[in-house]
Amino acid sequence: MSTIRVGVNGFGTIGRRVALAVTLQKDMRLVGVVKRTPDYAALYAASKGIPLYTPTSREAEEFEKRGIKVAGTLRELLSRVDVIVDATPEGQGAKNKPLYREAGVRQIYQGGEKPDVADASFSTLCNYEESKGRGSLRVVSCNTTGLLRLICTLNREFGVESVRAVLVRRGADPKEVKKGPIDSIVLNPPSLPSHHAVDVKTVLPWLDIKTAAVAVPTTFMHMHHVTLRLAKAVEKRDVLEILASAPRIMLVSSGDTGIKSTSQLVDAARLSRMGYDIPELVVFEESVAVDGNEVMLFQAVHQESIVVPENIDAIRAVTSSPLTLEETLKATDGSLGLRKTLW
Amino acid sequence: MSTIRVGVNGFGTIGRRVALAVTLQKDMRLVGVVKRTPDYAALYAASKGIPLYTPTSREAEEFEKRGIKVAGTLRELLSRVDVIVDATPEGQGAKNKPLYREAGVRQIYQGGEKPDVADASFSTLCNYEESKGRGSLRVVSCNTTGLLRLICTLNREFGVESVRAVLVRRGADPKEVKKGPIDSIVLNPPSLPSHHAVDVKTVLPWLDIKTAAVAVPTTFMHMHHVTLRLAKAVEKRDVLEILASAPRIMLVSSGDTGIKSTSQLVDAARLSRMGYDIPELVVFEESVAVDGNEVMLFQAVHQESIVVPENIDAIRAVTSSPLTLEETLKATDGSLGLRKTLW
Repeated sequence: MSTIRVGVNGFGTIGRRVALAVTLQKDMRLVGVVKRTPDYAALYAASKGIPLYTPTSREAEEFEKRGIKVAGTLRELLSRVDVIVDATPEGQGAKNKPLYREAGVRQIYQGGEKPDVADASFSTLCNYEESKGRGSLRVVSCNTTGLLRLICTLNREFGVESVRAVLVRRGADPKEVKKGPIDSIVLNPPSLPSHHAVDVKTVLPWLDIKTAAVAVPTTFMHMHHVTLRLAKAVEKRDVLEILASAPRIMLVSSGDTGIKSTSQLVDAARLSRMGYDIPELVVFEESVAVDGNEVMLFQAVHQESIVVPENIDAIRAVTSSPLTLEETLKATDGSLGLRKTLW
Repeated sequence: MSTIRVGVNGFGTIGRRVALAVTLQKDMRLVGVVKRTPDYAALYAASKGIPLYTPTSREAEEFEKRGIKVAGTLRELLSRVDVIVDATPEGQGAKNKPLYREAGVRQIYQGGEKPDVADASFSTLCNYEESKGRGSLRVVSCNTTGLLRLICTLNREFGVESVRAVLVRRGADPKEVKKGPIDSIVLNPPSLPSHHAVDVKTVLPWLDIKTAAVAVPTTFMHMHHVTLRLAKAVEKRDVLEILASAPRIMLVSSGDTGIKSTSQLVDAARLSRMGYDIPELVVFEESVAVDGNEVMLFQAVHQESIVVPENIDAIRAVTSSPLTLEETLKATDGSLGLRKTLW
């Protein structure tokens, strides 16, 4: 198996996590990351020996002033990789695309880009095999990734006919000190449906799905309330059994652990996890309610880390990796330490 | 029409608003309010000439130390009224009930009490006429009142077959400085359904309704996302027309006003309303989405004031007031200044 040479453009919330995840894959090599400003994240990358590239040669001077060695420009990085993971700010990926195409590299984009930026939208549990050989893939956003993990898991087993979901979104990431809201519940957006339903349909175009979202004054994890109508009536124990054994989903019992909020989940993760990342989709066990073919539940989505495993799988898919779905799940989740329990 | 003599036990968030609302009714007289401690609310009541009673004669001394005149004990108040509105803390109403019965007064309880505290649960738009002549009524909680105003309005016009609602609750009232959460989304409760569905069924036992709720770090207004299945397919304009003309519901257009959150609603209310009270149920116009017989929308509920009009109507119902539903709506809403627009 040849090693996949990977570059990551952007070293922010997603980029830095994807870059570090790439270094943990046996079948990949991180050739370098692209950074625009020599901030603390750049200092960290340099201290870890990760080759740093700048968008153009203009930015290099500022890095060198701070004693950070620059390995070259984005264009140079592109000449040394098989795949570029674009983790630049929303909308910037589309602007970068011509450069990537010119260099003849495969491309991974994030969910902030419009769907037409890539050949297809991607979510491992839904369409890993079908995505092989695509020239470019767009890993859907954190909320959509969370929804799709649940939907595709239940769809495989029972068939899913319709989904109605209400998303209570964290207002800002911990580092986003200028973003709100404080003391407000914000319709996000004020007209229904929210874009999440549209985004789910980029992967599952046949699905009857409607979503609505609000933003609230918290900094970690979105909370979804999801109502699914299955193709057949089921028992609660059937649903719990599937969720308990499914990859990338963690069932947490409020009764057993006392955890019934995003902040308690995070506090538990701080006991055993780097930077409280929770890339698993967390389903609250006692919230699962089943009535005939209607299933309702609460799930929590860690906005900063949930898409990282899917980015790794997407890198394999665009390079037509010989790894099957089962093998990529095992390789990715094993290396990143995804678990079925909190610790 | 004889004047209804009203006492209010408790002068907290609800009690003080109901007491002041009683003073504005032509067919009622506020005989007095019961207060346990001589705090700023007691000083305010005294300054307005509202007769203050204490639970027993033991508490009177503390009031008089602060120069607040006490008119008597709860027992004495009960001998002077036709109706007592119990607005004491959750669960205290049931403990007070024997005293009220002994005094032979009609009783109004709040939604924090269990349903069996009263002869029936009450919501004006759903069961005002049927409630006449009951010896005691329980005005359902703020969230339930909001849900019932919407459901009974749409049910009268189209028939409502089922309701699914997700409630994003404010964590604490402005004055509750010891309550959380801060920076957390809390399942409230962690197992489905939340008690709100059960509470709606105390008024509409035939309804297929399921609710789920989370608490978030805000202090004013709950936000509900409601999905209703009607008995027939409708057009969006039909729904908007009914909501635009229904009592106690205010349609707010995010497009016309720029208001798309609880805090902006409150800020608009501060321009024209006492203490930013919004006793109307606020439905966000652009959030109304209709697909066949499925209606979805966002609505905001001001937790401190929404039940006040219903308490006034409940006083009329337990005393078999000659006022019809239409008349009590007109009398209550006119006196309290409920509007179909923000100002």
